[in-house]
Amino acid sequence: MKNLKWNQEGLLPVIAQDYRTGEIRMFAWANQQALQLTLETGYAHYYSRSRKEIWKKGETSGELQRVIEVRVDCDEDVLLYIVEQNLNRACHTGERNCFFRNIQGNRKLRPLPFETPSRLEEVIKDRLARKPKNSYTVRLFLEGEDRVLQKFGEEAIETLIALKNSQKDQIVLETADLLYSLILSLVVKGVAWQEVMEELAKRFKE
Amino acid sequence: MKNLKWNQEGLLPVIAQDYRTGEIRMFAWANQQALQLTLETGYAHYYSRSRKEIWKKGETSGELQRVIEVRVDCDEDVLLYIVEQNLNRACHTGERNCFFRNIQGNRKLRPLPFETPSRLEEVIKDRLARKPKNSYTVRLFLEGEDRVLQKFGEEAIETLIALKNSQKDQIVLETADLLYSLILSLVVKGVAWQEVMEELAKRFKE
Repeated sequence: MKNLKWNQEGLLPVIAQDYRTGEIRMFAWANQQALQLTLETGYAHYYSRSRKEIWKKGETSGELQRVIEVRVDCDEDVLLYIVEQNLNRACHTGERNCFFRNIQGNRKLRPLPFETPSRLEEVIKDRLARKPKNSYTVRLFLEGEDRVLQKFGEEAIETLIALKNSQKDQIVLETADLLYSLILSLVVKGVAWQEVMEELAKRFKE
Repeated sequence: MKNLKWNQEGLLPVIAQDYRTGEIRMFAWANQQALQLTLETGYAHYYSRSRKEIWKKGETSGELQRVIEVRVDCDEDVLLYIVEQNLNRACHTGERNCFFRNIQGNRKLRPLPFETPSRLEEVIKDRLARKPKNSYTVRLFLEGEDRVLQKFGEEAIETLIALKNSQKDQIVLETADLLYSLILSLVVKGVAWQEVMEELAKRFKE
């Protein structure tokens, strides 16, 4: 393990970032034992400065964080836990993460660019599970698999035509349609967006 | 502004996360004045605990961070700056971000799922700018725009066939090919992946 620079209280700040969506799930602190337990068990442990004790995230709530990887910053005094969040409600308020408001106090629900595909995948899965009446996704799904795939094919052709026409606004709109349609097709076939990303990432030279 | 809970030294931890890629660019601290300057100027300001002074990120290096949004956590004692990083080298070491090593000290270069498309876009842009001889991307590009778009069309059809065949491994491989081909087409047409993500995000209900 790296020679970490623990602060005067024997702690380091920890950022917990979601492996799939990239959202910052929470921010907390770890002492040496909490880090050790995290590495040994593969589940996020922190140190509570108010309760003065180690805690395992989700021990009571079930909101466990499986730790894919622990990173350290250039100065070796900040930790980054890359986590998979068990129930998608990391914050003690029940929100998906602790950073759900901007500095003016307004709730921020619209996804940031990097989290958009996986958040869209979540919405699609939710629609197909709950089947609300006015949902376009549900209507398309109920028309059957061939209809979903046909839609994907159509969107691909429309994207191709937009690209060929070199109209930037149109390219953006059609590509967005295509990605919606692609992610719906993947959901229908039981393939996670994350699996496709992992395949693409494998092709990067280390 | 929210009623923030500054610590005994009058500081709050700040996480700087990239708007486009989602990577954590750095971790630092802010006092009230640093936050005020950040909000007023739209550029990230921090407080250096060692030098005991406010600093504007990139003032000397040119590595400015344009702040798209400032978020606050549930306890109102941690800040999240969502930033655009001017030169893509946020760390003082010259690395793209400060978290380039894991706890064992190994460099981590392979992208995480959420950052994969924008990192791929960066690689493609780099290839087209530097034109290395052994690059598949460069070869395809030099065959002309129609060849690039034709490739995109082929990959879409191959993805469709894989979906129809319900072979999960094949779906993953073909979808990865399709996304590479799509992102290359977008780069050739001057459309940023981020613009497509922003269009998709707009469609989420707030």
